[in-house]
Amino acid sequence: MAEQSKKWVLMVTAQAPTNIAVIKYWGKRDENLILAINDSISVTLDPAHLCTTTTVAVSPSFNQDRMWLNRKEISLAGGRYQNCLREIRARARDVEDEKKGIKITKKDWQNLHVHIDSYNNFPTAAGLASSAAGFACLVFSLAKLMNVQEDNGRLSAIARQGSGSACRSLFGGFVKWVMGKEENGSDSVAVPLVDEKHWDELVIIIAVVSSRQKETSSTSGMRETVETSALIEHRAKVVVPKRIIQMEEAIQNRDFPTFAQLTCSDSNQFHAVCMDTSPPIFYMNDTSHRVIGCVEKWNRSEGTPQVAYTFDAGPNAVLIARNRKAATLMLQRLLFHFPPNSDTDLDSYVIGDKSILKDAGIQDINDVEALPPPPEIKDKVPAQKYKGEISYFICTRPGRGPVLLTDESQALLNPETGLPK
Amino acid sequence: MAEQSKKWVLMVTAQAPTNIAVIKYWGKRDENLILAINDSISVTLDPAHLCTTTTVAVSPSFNQDRMWLNRKEISLAGGRYQNCLREIRARARDVEDEKKGIKITKKDWQNLHVHIDSYNNFPTAAGLASSAAGFACLVFSLAKLMNVQEDNGRLSAIARQGSGSACRSLFGGFVKWVMGKEENGSDSVAVPLVDEKHWDELVIIIAVVSSRQKETSSTSGMRETVETSALIEHRAKVVVPKRIIQMEEAIQNRDFPTFAQLTCSDSNQFHAVCMDTSPPIFYMNDTSHRVIGCVEKWNRSEGTPQVAYTFDAGPNAVLIARNRKAATLMLQRLLFHFPPNSDTDLDSYVIGDKSILKDAGIQDINDVEALPPPPEIKDKVPAQKYKGEISYFICTRPGRGPVLLTDESQALLNPETGLPK
Repeated sequence: MAEQSKKWVLMVTAQAPTNIAVIKYWGKRDENLILAINDSISVTLDPAHLCTTTTVAVSPSFNQDRMWLNRKEISLAGGRYQNCLREIRARARDVEDEKKGIKITKKDWQNLHVHIDSYNNFPTAAGLASSAAGFACLVFSLAKLMNVQEDNGRLSAIARQGSGSACRSLFGGFVKWVMGKEENGSDSVAVPLVDEKHWDELVIIIAVVSSRQKETSSTSGMRETVETSALIEHRAKVVVPKRIIQMEEAIQNRDFPTFAQLTCSDSNQFHAVCMDTSPPIFYMNDTSHRVIGCVEKWNRSEGTPQVAYTFDAGPNAVLIARNRKAATLMLQRLLFHFPPNSDTDLDSYVIGDKSILKDAGIQDINDVEALPPPPEIKDKVPAQKYKGEISYFICTRPGRGPVLLTDESQALLNPETGLPK
Repeated sequence: MAEQSKKWVLMVTAQAPTNIAVIKYWGKRDENLILAINDSISVTLDPAHLCTTTTVAVSPSFNQDRMWLNRKEISLAGGRYQNCLREIRARARDVEDEKKGIKITKKDWQNLHVHIDSYNNFPTAAGLASSAAGFACLVFSLAKLMNVQEDNGRLSAIARQGSGSACRSLFGGFVKWVMGKEENGSDSVAVPLVDEKHWDELVIIIAVVSSRQKETSSTSGMRETVETSALIEHRAKVVVPKRIIQMEEAIQNRDFPTFAQLTCSDSNQFHAVCMDTSPPIFYMNDTSHRVIGCVEKWNRSEGTPQVAYTFDAGPNAVLIARNRKAATLMLQRLLFHFPPNSDTDLDSYVIGDKSILKDAGIQDINDVEALPPPPEIKDKVPAQKYKGEISYFICTRPGRGPVLLTDESQALLNPETGLPK
């Protein structure tokens, strides 16, 4: 390397999806390694609508590791970033780019610095877990840059040390995070259950709830639950192991009624143990409760579940519809009960896969206002409306795992300087 | 009896308190006898502010059992009323009133009809458990009328068959409902722990939350929890038995920090198992959460608990302050965050023991508006206010058990006709 010009910059750009747990992860048995007290299962969301794009670059001209997130420089000093960087560097291998005349040996990586630029294609601070996609993308792209030969399962154990749920974003479709037994966390990894094509009828609608409340971070929240809840141990040791088995079977068989029942129950139980924490943690608010009420009422009236709901550490609802038809009918119900504020246009109120909106016969705000009350509430006159309680909806579906973006124009860093474009 | 005039009416009037559980009752092992799946402990509230007054009358001129509740006639056909009436009648004894020339033998009671008139001195439909005071008063007054010789403990087993928590209203102070083991429920009775003088520093403030939501009744709610929650059994069999022992000790020792910690944790766990029910039950709303946040923040800033909170099957907060000073400071905080609507006068906004208001230096609505933000939130500018979210506050204290009212002017029924005055 010594003889090479200091000017070269080697870059890799990757894209990683976010995921939403259907059997929840809540509680660590090791805070530093991020080892969970129970297995969890998630569905990966289509990166077309929710993903992180990360460019990582290496150059002898960089004199320190630096990172930008959503166009602002952030510190890499935190233990979580340091753990990921150290683990990836420890597995780095020789890299040769003959065209550019670059040769980096395994040993060189210990002394070379990296630049990391990361960007979420969805609004930040919306309470949509961006750290899962972020750390998955960071680890995946660094591994590619440094020619790490380990598979995504092994990489998931590294991403896990950035953010627990990030390990599940190393795969598409449905993914299980096996809690593992080893003290060093080597067997606490993500395992793909089925890919995104296995159950491609599913449609996912995310209701981003307007909220001004400051929420308890999931890191401190789950620590407090483990320390103070009298129910969490029973959940982790007795309830979840059974649900994991049932959920895997439901996913294999595309058994929506069982899937929905388990998904809703496990979300509710996660929020129950949060409430059983001292002091109690409330992530759902009245709007979240109203969304649940709307889904439960419709499911009951249909005789079999049409939609499952799940909520992470915040008030946003993630609704999983059994198929497009159910998603269409769900969206009509949601728009009826939660119309946008008068200053919001429909185009920014329903984002992502807008074809669901078209299927629902809704083209503009007048169509929203003309929606009839859902038949299951028709006795209740007037039906209640909660204008402005939801900021926007995102329509999406199960999606693929991380990918390399080979088109250099998609890189976030300048290929000459290695600085943000 | 045959030779007597048909005109006589014999009456008894009694008053019974309501109670609030500090270790919660949630879940039955027998729906008809109303047998609980765990012990519970409550504090009886001062009947001066919250109680039921009931007049029961018997006369050979009555041709059916009739009841009026809050001046409206209601049906006695329900199993719960019938169970109480049958059990009391089975224990009726000879009654003789020489002055009036009345003589009723034990056997006569099976053929005599009663009139029952019951009245709550607090607003109905406010979500304040009126059935506890109501059934306690019904059973207590009927027992006196029919010269039942059993003590209040035995009577509590009858009141329990009207409404589970009613058994705890047969005593003042702190009361334990022992779940019992017998299949017939004979050992499922209330036991007085300490009377109302034992810990008379305590002050209780009830925040009645404005709510338009229809709530799940506690009868169907607890049935659904027992049938569907994966956590309720662990709560009932493992968690509550330990808490009962700790709570009894805390009450005996007037150990407020332990009392507060147990009270808050058990309220939260009750709401947690409600949320773990399928479909989930939400009794607390955003206002309830905000009251908890306000109490938790203040307690933390003081280093030791000043106030405990507990919520029953509804959004209303019951706050138990360690002493008058703490109650005064709590009320100032509550009025700061939850001022009344502009059309509400202070006199109807804080009811019950208004001397707390005087201690807080608040004489009119201007004093409420002039309240400074509590010091523990002083960094947060502007401090949040939630005008109109609370309907009113009731200031009260621990109180006595049921009593007979001997002053005939307090009877609700006309002594000549046996009909409501």
